Amino acid sequence: MASSQPLTLVSDTGTASVMALFHDVRARSVSLVAPLSDADASVQSMPDASPAKWHLAHTSWFLETFVLAGIEDYRPFDASFGFLFNSYYEAVGPRLARHRRGMITRPSLADVLAWRAHVDAAVARVAEALPADRLALLELGCHHEMQHQELLLTDILDAMAANPCEPSLWPAPRASASLAGHVGWTQHEGGIHRIGHQGKGTGESFAFDCEGPAHDVLLQPFALAERLVSNADWADFIADGGYDKPALWLSEGWAWRQAEAITAPLHWRAEEGWWSSFGLAGRAMLDADAPVTHISFFEADAFASWAGARLPTEAEWEVAAAGHDPRGGNQLDRAGAVAPHGTPAMFGDCWQWTASAFRPYPGFRVAEGAVGEYNGKFMSGQMVLKGASCATPRGSSRASTRNFFPPTARWQFSGVRLARDVQFGA
Amino acid sequence: MASSQPLTLVSDTGTASVMALFHDVRARSVSLVAPLSDADASVQSMPDASPAKWHLAHTSWFLETFVLAGIEDYRPFDASFGFLFNSYYEAVGPRLARHRRGMITRPSLADVLAWRAHVDAAVARVAEALPADRLALLELGCHHEMQHQELLLTDILDAMAANPCEPSLWPAPRASASLAGHVGWTQHEGGIHRIGHQGKGTGESFAFDCEGPAHDVLLQPFALAERLVSNADWADFIADGGYDKPALWLSEGWAWRQAEAITAPLHWRAEEGWWSSFGLAGRAMLDADAPVTHISFFEADAFASWAGARLPTEAEWEVAAAGHDPRGGNQLDRAGAVAPHGTPAMFGDCWQWTASAFRPYPGFRVAEGAVGEYNGKFMSGQMVLKGASCATPRGSSRASTRNFFPPTARWQFSGVRLARDVQFGA
Amino acid sequence: MASSQPLTLVSDTGTASVMALFHDVRARSVSLVAPLSDADASVQSMPDASPAKWHLAHTSWFLETFVLAGIEDYRPFDASFGFLFNSYYEAVGPRLARHRRGMITRPSLADVLAWRAHVDAAVARVAEALPADRLALLELGCHHEMQHQELLLTDILDAMAANPCEPSLWPAPRASASLAGHVGWTQHEGGIHRIGHQGKGTGESFAFDCEGPAHDVLLQPFALAERLVSNADWADFIADGGYDKPALWLSEGWAWRQAEAITAPLHWRAEEGWWSSFGLAGRAMLDADAPVTHISFFEADAFASWAGARLPTEAEWEVAAAGHDPRGGNQLDRAGAVAPHGTPAMFGDCWQWTASAFRPYPGFRVAEGAVGEYNGKFMSGQMVLKGASCATPRGSSRASTRNFFPPTARWQFSGVRLARDVQFGA
Amino acid sequence: MASSQPLTLVSDTGTASVMALFHDVRARSVSLVAPLSDADASVQSMPDASPAKWHLAHTSWFLETFVLAGIEDYRPFDASFGFLFNSYYEAVGPRLARHRRGMITRPSLADVLAWRAHVDAAVARVAEALPADRLALLELGCHHEMQHQELLLTDILDAMAANPCEPSLWPAPRASASLAGHVGWTQHEGGIHRIGHQGKGTGESFAFDCEGPAHDVLLQPFALAERLVSNADWADFIADGGYDKPALWLSEGWAWRQAEAITAPLHWRAEEGWWSSFGLAGRAMLDADAPVTHISFFEADAFASWAGARLPTEAEWEVAAAGHDPRGGNQLDRAGAVAPHGTPAMFGDCWQWTASAFRPYPGFRVAEGAVGEYNGKFMSGQMVLKGASCATPRGSSRASTRNFFPPTARWQFSGVRLARDVQFGA
Repeated sequence: MASSQPLTLVSDTGTASVMALFHDVRARSVSLVAPLSDADASVQSMPDASPAKWHLAHTSWFLETFVLAGIEDYRPFDASFGFLFNSYYEAVGPRLARHRRGMITRPSLADVLAWRAHVDAAVARVAEALPADRLALLELGCHHEMQHQELLLTDILDAMAANPCEPSLWPAPRASASLAGHVGWTQHEGGIHRIGHQGKGTGESFAFDCEGPAHDVLLQPFALAERLVSNADWADFIADGGYDKPALWLSEGWAWRQAEAITAPLHWRAEEGWWSSFGLAGRAMLDADAPVTHISFFEADAFASWAGARLPTEAEWEVAAAGHDPRGGNQLDRAGAVAPHGTPAMFGDCWQWTASAFRPYPGFRVAEGAVGEYNGKFMSGQMVLKGASCATPRGSSRASTRNFFPPTARWQFSGVRLARDVQFGA
Repeated sequence: MASSQPLTLVSDTGTASVMALFHDVRARSVSLVAPLSDADASVQSMPDASPAKWHLAHTSWFLETFVLAGIEDYRPFDASFGFLFNSYYEAVGPRLARHRRGMITRPSLADVLAWRAHVDAAVARVAEALPADRLALLELGCHHEMQHQELLLTDILDAMAANPCEPSLWPAPRASASLAGHVGWTQHEGGIHRIGHQGKGTGESFAFDCEGPAHDVLLQPFALAERLVSNADWADFIADGGYDKPALWLSEGWAWRQAEAITAPLHWRAEEGWWSSFGLAGRAMLDADAPVTHISFFEADAFASWAGARLPTEAEWEVAAAGHDPRGGNQLDRAGAVAPHGTPAMFGDCWQWTASAFRPYPGFRVAEGAVGEYNGKFMSGQMVLKGASCATPRGSSRASTRNFFPPTARWQFSGVRLARDVQFGA
Repeated sequence: MASSQPLTLVSDTGTASVMALFHDVRARSVSLVAPLSDADASVQSMPDASPAKWHLAHTSWFLETFVLAGIEDYRPFDASFGFLFNSYYEAVGPRLARHRRGMITRPSLADVLAWRAHVDAAVARVAEALPADRLALLELGCHHEMQHQELLLTDILDAMAANPCEPSLWPAPRASASLAGHVGWTQHEGGIHRIGHQGKGTGESFAFDCEGPAHDVLLQPFALAERLVSNADWADFIADGGYDKPALWLSEGWAWRQAEAITAPLHWRAEEGWWSSFGLAGRAMLDADAPVTHISFFEADAFASWAGARLPTEAEWEVAAAGHDPRGGNQLDRAGAVAPHGTPAMFGDCWQWTASAFRPYPGFRVAEGAVGEYNGKFMSGQMVLKGASCATPRGSSRASTRNFFPPTARWQFSGVRLARDVQFGA
Repeated sequence: MASSQPLTLVSDTGTASVMALFHDVRARSVSLVAPLSDADASVQSMPDASPAKWHLAHTSWFLETFVLAGIEDYRPFDASFGFLFNSYYEAVGPRLARHRRGMITRPSLADVLAWRAHVDAAVARVAEALPADRLALLELGCHHEMQHQELLLTDILDAMAANPCEPSLWPAPRASASLAGHVGWTQHEGGIHRIGHQGKGTGESFAFDCEGPAHDVLLQPFALAERLVSNADWADFIADGGYDKPALWLSEGWAWRQAEAITAPLHWRAEEGWWSSFGLAGRAMLDADAPVTHISFFEADAFASWAGARLPTEAEWEVAAAGHDPRGGNQLDRAGAVAPHGTPAMFGDCWQWTASAFRPYPGFRVAEGAVGEYNGKFMSGQMVLKGASCATPRGSSRASTRNFFPPTARWQFSGVRLARDVQFGA
């Protein structure tokens, strides 16, 4: 049984392919901040978000701490950076209070980029000689950085939205949205299915600890919508008073909606005759046929109730995703004003809220040592999202990926795909 | 398949047995408040707790609103009471803000008891003529009131603890605690098991909506501790620095422990040489062999990590409880200074935190109308507890009962039974 | 110069007259709580208010601590009461957090009344033998209790207003209001005037420490309105948008008005065609000709700006009050539904906000010891009010009395008398 | 009498001298931000502080709005800047919430400097033709900017202190501190004295509205310390438990000290054997002989009580300052790591807390229109400080200057000069 195996964080990937990934990932982070000024890169819009510079620095800190530390001849770039750019690893030492990350005006963006170059050179120098456990941590560091690339984009979007000038960082993309009106449903049989990441030795690629152990689940028959909920669908929900009917909402969700005076997805603004929204290309009229994003779990759940449907469970979603290409759809390939535009793909455009709380899989154990703080400690108060968004680096998400956020979070590219029960033979 | 059946809130119980239950339940509520002064019955120690008087009144309001309303000749006792004593039923009308319930110094305790008598007389008068749906709501009202009896006791305990005089409401019970030092483990095989309440027509007794539909789950082999965690066990956890090691805690739990400066279960106080605790009989030295109570989910989870074990899932607990008498153990029979004292029973002494978030079972649907607000709307942000406590009216809890509270709640009689994985053949 | 004299808290009153005052004051407190239930007497509507029972107990605690303590044969009624009913005397020992006073459901109202009787008997027994300093503290205790009688009434009014049932404690008084429309102005010359209490040896009556030393002030000519601002005046202010024009408001006041959504005096409610208000006799239509009360300093100041006038300074008010009878007007004589009704008197109906911050007079020194915590420590963040209200025990206020509250306080009977500059010879 | 005159905001200064001041002031602002990065200039450490860039922009906004608006041929640099850089002028239009000023990463520091150049050129172009009222507003704008120069320095000090790296912006100054141990006292007779600014036509220089009208006050004899309280004095206060004795503190002050866990002046840190502090040149050992700064009014008041003295009133301080050079002492001449170092001068080193609440002088009237929002609206909840600090542009403070801050404010260069009563002939 999988739970008796040592925890498998990484695949059997060899040095060459890890280093290919490494160069690719490290270069993309730098390209993402190209349009940012020093001040843009330093600002923090809310405690949940981090400055872009912090993401750049934290991902280098991860490599310096877990891959390079103790390696002969490696000298840390600046000893004080550990305190500044540690995130939540209590075991590694004290750290700056999260909501004060925006105070770090120095080191500057340029300094942080110089640190990155220093780390990159060191990694390249020692790569061939890395022992297997360090190589595994290097691969982990690359995937960790891909996660932070998505956060960098969503955090900077939130910061630009907090600026009354509503700056536009990149020119608008030309992709046209395509979610048609009618929703088709794909039926899935129930029964026993295997979910979760299979782990080492099975030829599978990298996965985070929380994706395993792989295990069997028992499902009832269900149906999953063939497309994401669209902005037009959401506008119907609003027009029908969806935000004003407590019966549609979870009690906590209704209290949140009342306290925060929520009446539309984040960044929506009522204009004459229709809605506008704010994205990485600035403010623009909302595309009716694009998937709705920037909604909370509570909104997603209320919408599903209104639509006479429900959210899929994590296991249902993962079973339904079998056979779909996790590298398909609208995902992040290069820097630009990424935005959801609607594709029939299972992955891409936006993360999809599920009905499942983020709790450990049977047999899950937290890894020993500091890296073990990675995901297990967040397993309360959060809901699972599946899939990938337009800001997810292509290749960094799998069917087994368990993204998670608190049920009120809205600053991610988060949306909905509906599910419903099926009664075979009824 | 169960999910296609109409929701079954109640059993097939006939009028006679419902009325027997009704008289029993209504009398017990009155006996519980016997030692309370008018002021005791009106005070509210925190927003999560309600005055004793409010519980007395709200349970009458429930009957007046759902059972008696519209019945010929029935005149509400006081039209303003609906606003005062509605709890969270948004559909029924406006209601007093929860944290202001302590402001209701009038109607007095005596007035509320008079209202109860008025309602009881009316119910007795119309019982024989009640249509089936009203009879079902009357049975629901009795079970609803049994839930409130437990809350009445835990809320009044919290209020007395908030009084610097630490009053003692009843004389101390004489039962002696009996949790021995060694913990035995009972192993359970994995496989497919049926959990949840079977519903109408199967000969089963009453259940709340959230306990169904019954459905199959797939379990891995596991072991469950044969006794609850004791106060002595918990003192060891404290002595070993359990409250000071972030690696043992969920991230949210650690933040809570830090913000609230939690260093022991609620009501514990360090005395010279040992601990005291506060209960319904006042403050007394802690009994080492009694089960620990008044701990949060976060504390329970940290303790389990420290002990090299884990919390059971809801399904594991329910499967393990098969064959155990849900009416056994230390539960509430009559008014008095109820307290956990430790028995080998599966039910009683204290509710047991599980690893499971309170989310809907497959096929669960919220009932139509106001009663439908009952449990479904609380299905976020809460964890499930199983079993029964010393304050649970005997007969009101079943294996399928899903008690739930936020992971920080401590004012209930909440404790821990540990679980662990089993590797057969290993 | 006065500042070189030892601080004089009390007059030269002899034992007989102090005891006459004592019996009068102690009896009135008991009569004030006659209509209160045990729960009414225990409830606390907000941190600034105290339960009625607490006022009853605290005034006995004062006597027990400062007059009876150490006297041979005196045995404290209950040793734990010191902790419960100390207010803010840090020097005397620990005390219950102010906002938790509503948790004291026990001792009951009856217990507290029994304590009062115990203390009263002891004081009567030892009165003749009291040394001068204890006698002075006894007189101070009587005046201290008269202050608490007013607070008891205003706190219980606030508690009844917090009860959705809006109980009526006493029958409505029959007095008719009489503030006519036109406002006359009395002019006062400038120059040097003496204000403050003259202190010991000058034949003056009791005063609190903060009322002295008497000292000269230099005033500019000014005029004072001959009547208080009326409810009709205030309705005009509202109708003219006074609550919506930031230019009328102090910056702090505007922020408070916005944050709290203040649009009318406390307890006002818009009815069809006019306003109602809530008082000790319950809710009733507002009397247009009665003085406005339950307004904050910020509202008073904004009103004065709107009216093209200003608030008087404390010194102006006190100089203008010379020759007016401080025992005149609508003040508290006996328990009942006291309410402002409008008289031409300088004292009575409501306290009058002044333009003066509550700061020490030249030469003021805090008294040594615990009693010294009395007023000096509150000399920041508060504004002075002069006069007396309908809830002020007649005889307990003087021209030199300095009442004080934070600029946002509204639960007292607080109102406005306007002032303006005068240019002689212009 | 002064109160009958129209409000005089400015002196009779002619165009040439206003323009000389203008060029001087505008150049200094630019020099002050020379060491700041774009991120340094954009960060906001707390709601009370503003980004350096904001100060630069707001002072240009003031000129554009009150001096240049409507002038033929003047085109605003950017129409959106009004919303961004209005501070608290409700009459001029909506404005960005104060605590969100740190979100303005764009316009950049370079953009804001370009705006300044644009405004400066326009002012220079139209200066000769400005009508008298516009010229007066231009002079007001210069003095307004000098105030903001001090805030710019104190806000950036606070921001650098919030950065865990504790950057040093300028090299440390070489001035040596010189407050000797013994404190001499200068006695002042009582009697009638004239304070406040004399206003227009009397040959006096510029003043803000709140400094008038000049008026007579009546003082008792008093003595004023000949030097400021030093760091060594303050260390004695700490060593003697001054922060732990509630009897020394105002009640509000003690509550603040407890809630915020205040145990030393802001920026002090206990090192082995002595204290360090943080300033514009970074962290350094505290100079025992320099004046203490970065203390609140509450701390100043508690210290005075501990020292057996008191704070001077505003009027006492102003009378004592007659004959002292307001341009003397340690004040701001040019950009650098300004710091208090101790001089015998009445002005300079640090602002001196007084015992006086910031309330209007007799006859004070708020000016009509938007500029009238300037000072009058802040006349509640603040205490007056007199003198000038090392960060005050030399020439911008006078004996009549009324600086004001809430009693908890500590991020300014604020200190203490003690006063005491004098008994002549005693």
